[in-house]
Amino acid sequence: MEDLHGYYLEDITVGMAAAYAKTITDADVVLFAGISGDVNPMHLNQEFAIGTSFGGCIAHGMLTASFISTVLGTRLPGPGCIYLSQNLRFMAPVRVGDTVRATVKVTAVDEQRGRVKVETTCTVGKTVVVAGEAELKVPRRVRAAAQ
Amino acid sequence: MEDLHGYYLEDITVGMAAAYAKTITDADVVLFAGISGDVNPMHLNQEFAIGTSFGGCIAHGMLTASFISTVLGTRLPGPGCIYLSQNLRFMAPVRVGDTVRATVKVTAVDEQRGRVKVETTCTVGKTVVVAGEAELKVPRRVRAAAQ
Amino acid sequence: MEDLHGYYLEDITVGMAAAYAKTITDADVVLFAGISGDVNPMHLNQEFAIGTSFGGCIAHGMLTASFISTVLGTRLPGPGCIYLSQNLRFMAPVRVGDTVRATVKVTAVDEQRGRVKVETTCTVGKTVVVAGEAELKVPRRVRAAAQ
Amino acid sequence: MEDLHGYYLEDITVGMAAAYAKTITDADVVLFAGISGDVNPMHLNQEFAIGTSFGGCIAHGMLTASFISTVLGTRLPGPGCIYLSQNLRFMAPVRVGDTVRATVKVTAVDEQRGRVKVETTCTVGKTVVVAGEAELKVPRRVRAAAQ
Repeated sequence: MEDLHGYYLEDITVGMAAAYAKTITDADVVLFAGISGDVNPMHLNQEFAIGTSFGGCIAHGMLTASFISTVLGTRLPGPGCIYLSQNLRFMAPVRVGDTVRATVKVTAVDEQRGRVKVETTCTVGKTVVVAGEAELKVPRRVRAAAQ
Repeated sequence: MEDLHGYYLEDITVGMAAAYAKTITDADVVLFAGISGDVNPMHLNQEFAIGTSFGGCIAHGMLTASFISTVLGTRLPGPGCIYLSQNLRFMAPVRVGDTVRATVKVTAVDEQRGRVKVETTCTVGKTVVVAGEAELKVPRRVRAAAQ
Repeated sequence: MEDLHGYYLEDITVGMAAAYAKTITDADVVLFAGISGDVNPMHLNQEFAIGTSFGGCIAHGMLTASFISTVLGTRLPGPGCIYLSQNLRFMAPVRVGDTVRATVKVTAVDEQRGRVKVETTCTVGKTVVVAGEAELKVPRRVRAAAQ
Repeated sequence: MEDLHGYYLEDITVGMAAAYAKTITDADVVLFAGISGDVNPMHLNQEFAIGTSFGGCIAHGMLTASFISTVLGTRLPGPGCIYLSQNLRFMAPVRVGDTVRATVKVTAVDEQRGRVKVETTCTVGKTVVVAGEAELKVPRRVRAAAQ
């Protein structure tokens, strides 16, 4: 299973970055509503949403935030890391048809505690839609030979 | 559309609480993988996951966290509020078959700025699986009579 | 369960044909991404896909190919046959909104080995999008009377 | 979008390999049935399937085959490649609970025509469940500086 594992602690340095991007569709919003139970009319009812300050339906903020988890869990650090915490600041709305790019950038590596801090940013074009930070525990490479 | 709107700022007081709970199924995990793009083997590959510290597949942390958004967006404050920020601390794994309860409790109301702070807690049985806090902007009741 | 079974070997002759057709939706693509794990941005990220030779997102080729399995497994030969092999040549892209028609036509029946060869063709309008051939093992009708 | 692109032709050499693995769940089978339309009782009806040579329900062969597309489209060659053809030989049944590993190995690189041939193998434990070969068109790295 070795080749399915992501980066090990020893491989990670400050400044490393990775991204994932996806276009939001109606299907994403309705499926997210179904699995989360978040049937807020702001996401599903255009008549209601038009009357709010957003002027129309917006995607779930947690749907956008989930792309951060995608980068962390599949690219950097990748499979095998443990998600410890995530801060999210929702800066601007995301709508169906927008392409959201989630970028993760390493800001600190604590080799003693096996922890990595990253800056997490979701953008649509040049607009930051979700800003935040995350912390992960990343396993060390197994050093069987040394023992 | 009045009746679809949630609580207005004037209706919210410190200590108010609301919850949403759902049992996690295989379908939730595979659907979440599709919409988020997070195909981390920790969630989808039992053979890989058995070899990790969790000893088997776990649900996406953001899937659990999405239930917080469900409470905020559908119950307290409910439709019409704006999600400003969310902090998440992933405390324990969630597995298929677990019933996750997300609870939101109001900790502060800033009447001048129209903002509400809440404590957000996801539990499985008595175990806290995700701890955190959120901040929301909540609209004031329209005072048509005053105009 | 007799009535759920498809054609038996004795019922199949060269030239027999059957079809299945379905319109591709955003939901099909995102669900296929989840169950397959194929989150290639060519299928999910309009900004990325616009920069490629296809000029926009395309559906997964295997999603189109799955309709062949639908004809084989539900119509001709139908339930009870065993899928031995499938060759696929991806000829043209399929996009959300396209209606794909999968057609299966019997080209050979090997009565001794209990095998049937078919030509498998997926079209969108008059354009062949996937061409190929398949081979199946088809059970003989039970001859209870002979015993 | 550069960082979302997979390998370019110049980066690929014979012998390179990549894999994807996933445990098959009930949800995968029912969702695949829904999007493909393949509602063959062999996959969905345990009473019917018990009476066949497989002795119980099996997953769709094309569901297993879709994991090959996952490796090709997300890892090797990765995003940007064009899927030209795929041969599939279904060797053994896959059941809910099995973890399927799809492995892709480069067997030939045609630099003139920009094409790559790979061997594609799906296994459950040590059993080969789907064998086959695929051909892809892989874009060259853009050589702006040379022009």
